[in-house]
Amino acid sequence: MRDREVLVRFRPSGAETYVLPGTRLVEAAAEAGVLIDVPCGGEGICGNCRVIVVAGAGEPTAAEREWLSEEELQRGWRLACQTAITEPTEVEIPHAGRAEPQILVHSNAPARASDDPPVWKRYVELPPPTRGDDAPDAIRLERALGVGPLEVPLAVLRGLSGRLREDGFRGTAVVAGTADQATRGTRPITARLVDFEAGNTETDAFAVAFDIGTTTLVGELLDLGTGTQWAVQSRVNPQTRFGDDVLSRILHARQVGTGLTELQEAIRSALDEMIGQLCLQAGTARERIYEVSIAGNTTMQQLLCGVDPSPLGEVPFVPAGGRSLTCRVTDLGLHIHPEAGAYVMPVIGGFVGGDTVAGLLATELAESDGPALFVDIGTNGEIALLTDGQLTAASTAAGPAFEGARISCGMRGSTGAIEKVVVDGRVRINVIGDVPPAGICGSGLIDVAAELLRHGVLTPEGRLHTPDQVAGDAPADLAQRIVMHEGQVSLLLATEDEGRDGRPVVLTQRDLRELQLATGAVRAGIAILLKRGGLKPTDIRHVLIGGGFGNFIRRSNAQRIGLLPTEIEHRRIRFMGNTSLAGARLAALSQTARRMAEQLARRTEHVDLSADPDFARMFAESMIFPEA
Amino acid sequence: MRDREVLVRFRPSGAETYVLPGTRLVEAAAEAGVLIDVPCGGEGICGNCRVIVVAGAGEPTAAEREWLSEEELQRGWRLACQTAITEPTEVEIPHAGRAEPQILVHSNAPARASDDPPVWKRYVELPPPTRGDDAPDAIRLERALGVGPLEVPLAVLRGLSGRLREDGFRGTAVVAGTADQATRGTRPITARLVDFEAGNTETDAFAVAFDIGTTTLVGELLDLGTGTQWAVQSRVNPQTRFGDDVLSRILHARQVGTGLTELQEAIRSALDEMIGQLCLQAGTARERIYEVSIAGNTTMQQLLCGVDPSPLGEVPFVPAGGRSLTCRVTDLGLHIHPEAGAYVMPVIGGFVGGDTVAGLLATELAESDGPALFVDIGTNGEIALLTDGQLTAASTAAGPAFEGARISCGMRGSTGAIEKVVVDGRVRINVIGDVPPAGICGSGLIDVAAELLRHGVLTPEGRLHTPDQVAGDAPADLAQRIVMHEGQVSLLLATEDEGRDGRPVVLTQRDLRELQLATGAVRAGIAILLKRGGLKPTDIRHVLIGGGFGNFIRRSNAQRIGLLPTEIEHRRIRFMGNTSLAGARLAALSQTARRMAEQLARRTEHVDLSADPDFARMFAESMIFPEA
Repeated sequence: MRDREVLVRFRPSGAETYVLPGTRLVEAAAEAGVLIDVPCGGEGICGNCRVIVVAGAGEPTAAEREWLSEEELQRGWRLACQTAITEPTEVEIPHAGRAEPQILVHSNAPARASDDPPVWKRYVELPPPTRGDDAPDAIRLERALGVGPLEVPLAVLRGLSGRLREDGFRGTAVVAGTADQATRGTRPITARLVDFEAGNTETDAFAVAFDIGTTTLVGELLDLGTGTQWAVQSRVNPQTRFGDDVLSRILHARQVGTGLTELQEAIRSALDEMIGQLCLQAGTARERIYEVSIAGNTTMQQLLCGVDPSPLGEVPFVPAGGRSLTCRVTDLGLHIHPEAGAYVMPVIGGFVGGDTVAGLLATELAESDGPALFVDIGTNGEIALLTDGQLTAASTAAGPAFEGARISCGMRGSTGAIEKVVVDGRVRINVIGDVPPAGICGSGLIDVAAELLRHGVLTPEGRLHTPDQVAGDAPADLAQRIVMHEGQVSLLLATEDEGRDGRPVVLTQRDLRELQLATGAVRAGIAILLKRGGLKPTDIRHVLIGGGFGNFIRRSNAQRIGLLPTEIEHRRIRFMGNTSLAGARLAALSQTARRMAEQLARRTEHVDLSADPDFARMFAESMIFPEA
Repeated sequence: MRDREVLVRFRPSGAETYVLPGTRLVEAAAEAGVLIDVPCGGEGICGNCRVIVVAGAGEPTAAEREWLSEEELQRGWRLACQTAITEPTEVEIPHAGRAEPQILVHSNAPARASDDPPVWKRYVELPPPTRGDDAPDAIRLERALGVGPLEVPLAVLRGLSGRLREDGFRGTAVVAGTADQATRGTRPITARLVDFEAGNTETDAFAVAFDIGTTTLVGELLDLGTGTQWAVQSRVNPQTRFGDDVLSRILHARQVGTGLTELQEAIRSALDEMIGQLCLQAGTARERIYEVSIAGNTTMQQLLCGVDPSPLGEVPFVPAGGRSLTCRVTDLGLHIHPEAGAYVMPVIGGFVGGDTVAGLLATELAESDGPALFVDIGTNGEIALLTDGQLTAASTAAGPAFEGARISCGMRGSTGAIEKVVVDGRVRINVIGDVPPAGICGSGLIDVAAELLRHGVLTPEGRLHTPDQVAGDAPADLAQRIVMHEGQVSLLLATEDEGRDGRPVVLTQRDLRELQLATGAVRAGIAILLKRGGLKPTDIRHVLIGGGFGNFIRRSNAQRIGLLPTEIEHRRIRFMGNTSLAGARLAALSQTARRMAEQLARRTEHVDLSADPDFARMFAESMIFPEA
């Protein structure tokens, strides 16, 4: 039943993925976590998504012939939105030819150094002190670095004189703060000495960016000098053992004496282990990581920080802090360089957290030309709207269905997950990692619901036809998969023989109700924000979709089930992948990004959807899947 | 032999001292640690040192009648430089009538709030959150305080939401950073939340300022709101058990494996105990102290910070850091409020440290109208010269004689110390605290040498006449005190019957040689700085003397022994008391003072006296006491 997948490898990041033949390159890239900017929405009409297919390039399409010269085509240049994968492929994502305004979103592909990293390194050789030149060691270093006042923390000061004298007044300064005067102009700048290392270690400077989702944790190791992604790690948030949504964890923290400590320790140790794995993967040491940046929803961030989330569990759901938190990384119990700093994203409200701010930062929603919508589909759905320069944001109660939770065979978008389902003549599925399927993830779920609606097997009200009802109408392969499973009408996606460990993968009527609820919540949220902004769906010029699926949702299917308004043209919808991680990455690499995040968080109006008089009606309406 | 002393009490500080009848009020104030500005040098010709003698006012002098109206005189107004103490006296130091440029020096008398304290408090009542007003707690607080971005450290954030909800969204914010917008104008300001306390604790906000001398530690508890000094503590630096000068301690740190740790722990625990005593004395808690400010010489500061001082023990004597150090107070192992900050003064060079910078700050030397000299007489003598807007500074190898060390019966200026000696018909001594004498301190030493020179008992070369030689010439009371003591010609200041615990107080020939060396070192240093500045002693408009004696040196005696150039007019010499402590106090109370300290440290040129080609000759010449 599973089609043979082929390997696609991306340079310079080295990211890999397996996809079905026929998959478009832009989609394969998204699966590999490599984001390619597709300004025109993948219609082949802007020519911006140029890449070099080093191995495995197929025949150029008409659109590619239009945008690329014959010489370029021969050298392997293609448009990522046009080229389909047919065989094992190797792709180079070039530095040049990208639209600058979108560069922030795609800072891992191509890798891009920031102008003002929070930490930078400089190898220096100082003139040794003499009787005629007896300035203090830290002042000598400050002069050599050409920075303004250099703050030397106590722990670093304790080792500085010894290190300088052991190594002949040579070594590499690790500096936190604004970059050197040459690039910064004449205004006075301050800097903090993180360390002074023996020898020239300029090229060994790393940061870690984390997206801490309710369900999934993702971390990546970044090169502070070049912006290159050196390693990626993800895992299930171990806090899920205390409940799969934020409220159950808030309750645990509130009702159990040691609850907060347990939750904090669970995520702290997970992140610390992930850092260890990132170091192994990239072959570097924890001490070479000088900065960690963290984005998550308000509850996740408070739990990591050991801040009691109780007020987030009761009306009016008030966060403890609003601004970004900067502290020593040791205050969070993470083990990287002991003088490293930690940065935790600012939040907008109780359920519109640092992940949304990171998404606003990464998508550059606020810079859009005209009304624009950002929908972040994680454990809850957060929505932000830009209109007339005003940003509003709200959270929906979508629940964790899109991350595979509360779905009987649900799982996150990792190896073994059915992440794509197509019903043409037969039911075709794609499993991440090309292994026997173990469950279904969010994007697969959306595909299934759309296909079932399309083939009339699911009613707009969300009722799955019984095996008897579908017998004649639906394609035979689909019809025979509609079965009774534990008393419920269900779709059999994989039999016991096909599934991993001899277990079938089944989608039940109740699962579809969960999806219906989740979709309805997002749809109602969008409707209310549009209403408040005095907008119709057709007024929206850009819809930017974020989500940690690890997969592309297909636009047509997202619209078919009503997750996105059907009136919006395809080309206006862009999938941005894990925007929370992308925002954390920007904050890990750039101080300007941090300032922007702070501004975004404070200028965004927080809207309480349920306080809207139309909320109940709109939510009820949105529960009905759109008619074909 | 001891004359009956009388008590003088000062308001508002409550400081007290016992002085001999006939002592001028300005001198009594200095003994009590209360500094009164005497711009004219105490000649009664400027009328600036006006005080109110509440009880014990004597007849006004002619100068007082000239400067004060009959009504003022009747209300007790007197000139501090004119009025002599004749009976127990109570003195009010008024707020008004002071020369503004000198206000910094005398910030403890009168107490004076700073415009920009490093920490301030504000009682606030916040509107409790509602569904329509669900901003994060920290943002609500920020708005109520009217500050710019309010940084909330992790430890404070952890308790904030709970504290707000327990106390009905009321309480007192403790804020580090610039003061409120009302006084600061419109520029964006940042602030850090140190704590949020239950109830209104606005009036309970303290800082501690420390002068950490090689020999003596002095600490004072200051009211951050009003600048009032609430308590003072002093003690011998317990590091003296590792050697009485800085070099022996540097050697100990260098040669003994645990040396640095021992030295650091010795001073840390002493300061921490002093904080406890300050709290007891003032009836407050350690948690109400939000800031500590420290001034000391470069070695003392490095030892307190746990920074290896080895490079300070060898040519070219390079300090580890130059700029001020700000850190968490917990990093120094001191126990006040756990989120409090510590500030350690910037330094100029290896032997021109934070105490000198503090002195420059407190004396406002750099603001002087014309060439000015600052001489800080502590364990070493540091000298700074202002000429043509240029500051230069140097340290001399005066040694600890002025602090009573290396003197057989030497002691610091505390209870039991002979701090003044006058030889008229007989030898009159004054003992601090009106108790049997236990030893002699720096000012007493200078008095003795001057009187011995004056009566021809000590030769300009520093040789003490033998009992036989003095028999006929000197006053009988003096002559009979010249004795042989343990094989040396000596001056018997107190017999076994008179001294504390039945021990005599004796000054030996060797002691006088120590003083001669110390005096010569300072004198040579002054001569070299003047030479480099192209100045003669008569060009100097102001000589500002600092020192932690706890006593006044009498100008005539300081000049008689050549500690200060004899050519300088009396009225140009001003004694400023413990300028290191005064500077630490300013830094504890004012951020502007900290910025000024930073600038002073960096703009002052460090001069290595011994590198001057004339050094050896000038030092040798300075060893000879001036002829009468």
